[in-house]
Amino acid sequence: MGNILVLYHSREGHTKKMAEHVVEGAIQIPGMDVRIKSIDEADRRDVDWCHGLALGSPTHLGIVSAAMKKFWEDLLPDWQKWDGKIGCAFSSQGGWGGGGELTCQTLLTMMMNFGFLVFGVTDYSGHQFTAHYGAVQAGEPKEKKEIASCRRLGRRLAEWVAVFVEGRKDLHPLECRYKRNPWG
Amino acid sequence: MGNILVLYHSREGHTKKMAEHVVEGAIQIPGMDVRIKSIDEADRRDVDWCHGLALGSPTHLGIVSAAMKKFWEDLLPDWQKWDGKIGCAFSSQGGWGGGGELTCQTLLTMMMNFGFLVFGVTDYSGHQFTAHYGAVQAGEPKEKKEIASCRRLGRRLAEWVAVFVEGRKDLHPLECRYKRNPWG
Amino acid sequence: MGNILVLYHSREGHTKKMAEHVVEGAIQIPGMDVRIKSIDEADRRDVDWCHGLALGSPTHLGIVSAAMKKFWEDLLPDWQKWDGKIGCAFSSQGGWGGGGELTCQTLLTMMMNFGFLVFGVTDYSGHQFTAHYGAVQAGEPKEKKEIASCRRLGRRLAEWVAVFVEGRKDLHPLECRYKRNPWG
Amino acid sequence: MGNILVLYHSREGHTKKMAEHVVEGAIQIPGMDVRIKSIDEADRRDVDWCHGLALGSPTHLGIVSAAMKKFWEDLLPDWQKWDGKIGCAFSSQGGWGGGGELTCQTLLTMMMNFGFLVFGVTDYSGHQFTAHYGAVQAGEPKEKKEIASCRRLGRRLAEWVAVFVEGRKDLHPLECRYKRNPWG
Repeated sequence: MGNILVLYHSREGHTKKMAEHVVEGAIQIPGMDVRIKSIDEADRRDVDWCHGLALGSPTHLGIVSAAMKKFWEDLLPDWQKWDGKIGCAFSSQGGWGGGGELTCQTLLTMMMNFGFLVFGVTDYSGHQFTAHYGAVQAGEPKEKKEIASCRRLGRRLAEWVAVFVEGRKDLHPLECRYKRNPWG
Repeated sequence: MGNILVLYHSREGHTKKMAEHVVEGAIQIPGMDVRIKSIDEADRRDVDWCHGLALGSPTHLGIVSAAMKKFWEDLLPDWQKWDGKIGCAFSSQGGWGGGGELTCQTLLTMMMNFGFLVFGVTDYSGHQFTAHYGAVQAGEPKEKKEIASCRRLGRRLAEWVAVFVEGRKDLHPLECRYKRNPWG
Repeated sequence: MGNILVLYHSREGHTKKMAEHVVEGAIQIPGMDVRIKSIDEADRRDVDWCHGLALGSPTHLGIVSAAMKKFWEDLLPDWQKWDGKIGCAFSSQGGWGGGGELTCQTLLTMMMNFGFLVFGVTDYSGHQFTAHYGAVQAGEPKEKKEIASCRRLGRRLAEWVAVFVEGRKDLHPLECRYKRNPWG
Repeated sequence: MGNILVLYHSREGHTKKMAEHVVEGAIQIPGMDVRIKSIDEADRRDVDWCHGLALGSPTHLGIVSAAMKKFWEDLLPDWQKWDGKIGCAFSSQGGWGGGGELTCQTLLTMMMNFGFLVFGVTDYSGHQFTAHYGAVQAGEPKEKKEIASCRRLGRRLAEWVAVFVEGRKDLHPLECRYKRNPWG
């Protein structure tokens, strides 16, 4: 049905781990073509191909990494050609309070600059754990709720692509019966 | 086809003026039902009704006004009922460099919290003038490019509602032939 | 020596609890006059009095609460009279990833608008726990590192007031011998 | 008295032009040692040397340029050695509404990560023109108020260094008699 790209930069492997869990969530929606790539493996054709993009970067100094930023600067010739794609963000930080949310914000800003529609997840994936502006993590996701948060982000991305790009209104999360706040 | 709400708070009338120009842009897409309301006139039913929302606040101390913030806090009982609406922002500030972009960012954050997909406009509406993260203005919009920026924001909102909610892929801005950067 | 105001809005008591721990940190620097007030108890004279301000709000929709915002809008007659005060932020959110950092960012933006110099804390207060852009918490601070994070924020505020306002360069955190990253 | 570094990245020369005007403002405070460098000419010793830093980047995709980001990532070995420096930001964007404020926000975030105290300018430099969160510009600064805004940012930085680092309370902008809002 739709094409989902999970694109990440990872230095220590934490954000890569998150990316893999985002994929696990995206494939929960049947019929999606899901591709995972690091920025070293990806190029403009991957972005061009996708309808939905989950973009992940480590939190470096409270914002996106230089490497991820450079990847997008190199795509400037394609600017104003990708309006209307759907995007979301994820980031692994050194510690809670270390800038993970602010980093997701910079990832969302870059995607908005390219004309994307961006979103967060209202659902809670466990006790006191959510991804309202993107999935954030300190170090590697290990606990159940941490992994579930990445998965839910990927699933929601796939849902929005299904609903908005493919017209599958039956897959709208407000129509579905799965537990959106499973800790309750 | 789709329902567009232009919802604003205005103290001196500048943001209201912007709202009116946003409406002028939204009605460029035929078949849209467009409603304009100040927060004093609106309630939860207006938000519930709309598919697309353009949200405007004056820039007060670099963020959304307390009155607009309160409007949304009072809507918390409807949280997790409005996921998947489409949103964008506009703001009038006291001067350039005065926080208009940061205010749009807080408006977008609030809408993301409610599960909206939010966007900016890649198009330029005149020489050195755009609305990449929402339409911003110093005081009242007067110049042609300032008014055009608000209109383009409203038009883009209506386009995304047409494309994503109504399935009118022919109305996708990348498929259309109007001049997206008219100063060139 | 210097005057420290810890000013907060709290609905459920979590941000109030943080405020109390911020105070515990501020009084670690001898000679500071430390005052703690909720926005219901405070007025312009408290802000006028202080050299350093720790400002706390619950995370509501990813930004500062309407009540805290209104408190500052009501202080607009004092704008451009308070340049050069020193400020920092703290916030309790519903869950990790729920907007605590973004809320601190809006608190810092408001203080910058009033001409404050604002800061975060580089120190870690425990394993994977810091307050780089303000102290953030999910619910009530309970764990040792969570409480330590609030305290360190208050201590750092008092240190900067001592160093910059009172000229006590001996109290500069880079000159001191306490353990800045105690989990190591 | 104090050491001021104006450090910039510029691709088309606009942000460089801003940097030069920031210098013109900083030298209005007698006794300051003011150094201007592009990131190609600067290294860790320049940052180490300064008490106050004005940091400028072009607005690329709404955030700091990859080159400027990389400059700071390469300085990570000096992290937690520079707490307590004073910082501010400036940025040239392609058009108004194009992300200049958001870019300044990312520059401020990076400096906060290194423990800096950061600020904006409350003053207006002309009709509807200010630098509340850093000096922003579309293209090259040309008009009087645009140039004045950069200068005021540099002057304010030098003033805060004089007041806070050198103890020259007589140079506090609230004590001085120059016209802070000259358009009135």
